[in-house]
Amino acid sequence: MRLTITGADGFVGRAIVRQLRQSGAAAELLLVDRVFAEPGPERRLAGDLTDPALIETATRDCDALLHLAALPGGAAERDPAASRAINLDVPLRLIEAMSGRRLVLAGSIAVFGAAPSGPVDDRTVPVPDSVYGTHKRMVELAFADSARRGALTGAVLRLPGIVARPPAAAGFGSAFLSEVFHAAATGRAYVVPVAPDATSWLSSLRACATNLAHALLADGVEQDPVTLPALRVRIGDLVTALARRFPGTAITHAEDLALRRAFASYPPLVTPRAAARGFAVEPDLDALVDAVLADLPSIPTQGGPSCA
Amino acid sequence: MRLTITGADGFVGRAIVRQLRQSGAAAELLLVDRVFAEPGPERRLAGDLTDPALIETATRDCDALLHLAALPGGAAERDPAASRAINLDVPLRLIEAMSGRRLVLAGSIAVFGAAPSGPVDDRTVPVPDSVYGTHKRMVELAFADSARRGALTGAVLRLPGIVARPPAAAGFGSAFLSEVFHAAATGRAYVVPVAPDATSWLSSLRACATNLAHALLADGVEQDPVTLPALRVRIGDLVTALARRFPGTAITHAEDLALRRAFASYPPLVTPRAAARGFAVEPDLDALVDAVLADLPSIPTQGGPSCA
Repeated sequence: MRLTITGADGFVGRAIVRQLRQSGAAAELLLVDRVFAEPGPERRLAGDLTDPALIETATRDCDALLHLAALPGGAAERDPAASRAINLDVPLRLIEAMSGRRLVLAGSIAVFGAAPSGPVDDRTVPVPDSVYGTHKRMVELAFADSARRGALTGAVLRLPGIVARPPAAAGFGSAFLSEVFHAAATGRAYVVPVAPDATSWLSSLRACATNLAHALLADGVEQDPVTLPALRVRIGDLVTALARRFPGTAITHAEDLALRRAFASYPPLVTPRAAARGFAVEPDLDALVDAVLADLPSIPTQGGPSCA
Repeated sequence: MRLTITGADGFVGRAIVRQLRQSGAAAELLLVDRVFAEPGPERRLAGDLTDPALIETATRDCDALLHLAALPGGAAERDPAASRAINLDVPLRLIEAMSGRRLVLAGSIAVFGAAPSGPVDDRTVPVPDSVYGTHKRMVELAFADSARRGALTGAVLRLPGIVARPPAAAGFGSAFLSEVFHAAATGRAYVVPVAPDATSWLSSLRACATNLAHALLADGVEQDPVTLPALRVRIGDLVTALARRFPGTAITHAEDLALRRAFASYPPLVTPRAAARGFAVEPDLDALVDAVLADLPSIPTQGGPSCA
């Protein structure tokens, strides 16, 4: 099976490539990104996906494509035209280019907007409130329509907050959700910018990578976007779990209401459809924290902002 | 005030131009369409809006723009790539080109999909189920995001079924809703392809034109799309109202379930937000029928498919 992965040298991309290497599932991998930090055994294609010629090359000989590359939310809000080029036009071209084949697109819970007003389930129709969430939602609609017409197989997977991203990952307003792990693990004092009762939807990197690989290698098509399972984590509980493991670290709270509204005001979430399709997340907060800490040494200090 | 109207030589476009001429509201009109059937007093620009240069020319010197041009639903379903170019890329370019000014976009009830499962009101979040409805919904989202950022003023108005379109208007599966008026008025026997208890959301051409002109000349911005008022008409009641006015005409019913599902399975509709903004429709079926019949002689036998 010939698989292409865009954003392959980003934080999530590298994790997927590791998983696919270990599973031996992929007969042939083509990795696509703007630049690659280091060489590796797979074929690599470096370039800008906003160039239609690169999309042509990236899609020419593959059976399935996983699209992770994106301009993250903070950067998208500062430059809507760049977001349109990267977060809208590129996936729309991929939907057309992958006609007759399998396409898995990394979506985002950003489609629900900050602070959804009530519990979210598989019937909730999202109303975005950001440039990033708007373009992600537009792509969901375009994919659903192509799937309805039988033009391709695959799915759009809405990714929750993935922890822990590399320290100070560029463009992510949600960086504090990852910084708190790095601070705890290195014994650095840290002020979490939201109060203990704030809540976020989180998944470990390895659960996210497992879910994306599962979707890439599966059959069939999901016309409606799949909201991936996530743990709704009370930030105070996360701090307590980290303090138990790193008793010497001083982690305190402040309250930045804009950050709280944007990234830590998430209501209850239920995702039975994802569970029925075999997507999973850690069963509880302790398992999530342990999974994140186990991967922390392998997280680069810098990484391309290639995924939601 | 310098106003540009795209799709200006179409069915709805001509009605708007008539209204604006009569009201004297527009200091200066620029009419844009692929071709114009006849000359007129206003400036005219003939060309293809999928050419970015034409959009540049059409938007250069205007204060407000009304975008009516579209590829209708039937044609969009047959050619999704053409729909993307005309129904998605063109409005997205207009949203960018009209930055800092006023833009009114003709949306469509097609965003709700055929046969919405329950009553529709201003809080209903649409889930389209056609190429046309998908692209219209994507444009709604893009406009809402630009409005949220304060990039422009204006609105997206969701048009209901407009009657009576010219006979056999190209590309419209909903043609029967107009054909029944033409058949009755000319004494031609006609088989309505849906049963008497089928229901559609209808507006007269003059109410539609009045609403669009109102939005074009208003101030402010509607971030969320505005579903225009419409009468939910039982098709049997419409046939009865026409038979009362044209007793000699034989109008009977068949039942094409696909047409019924697509165009005549509409649930109750309430649009208080539109009413609060001054948008209106005829108060009852008899008023609607009279308004449609009064305009029937002025409807061309052929007209460009320039509006939803």
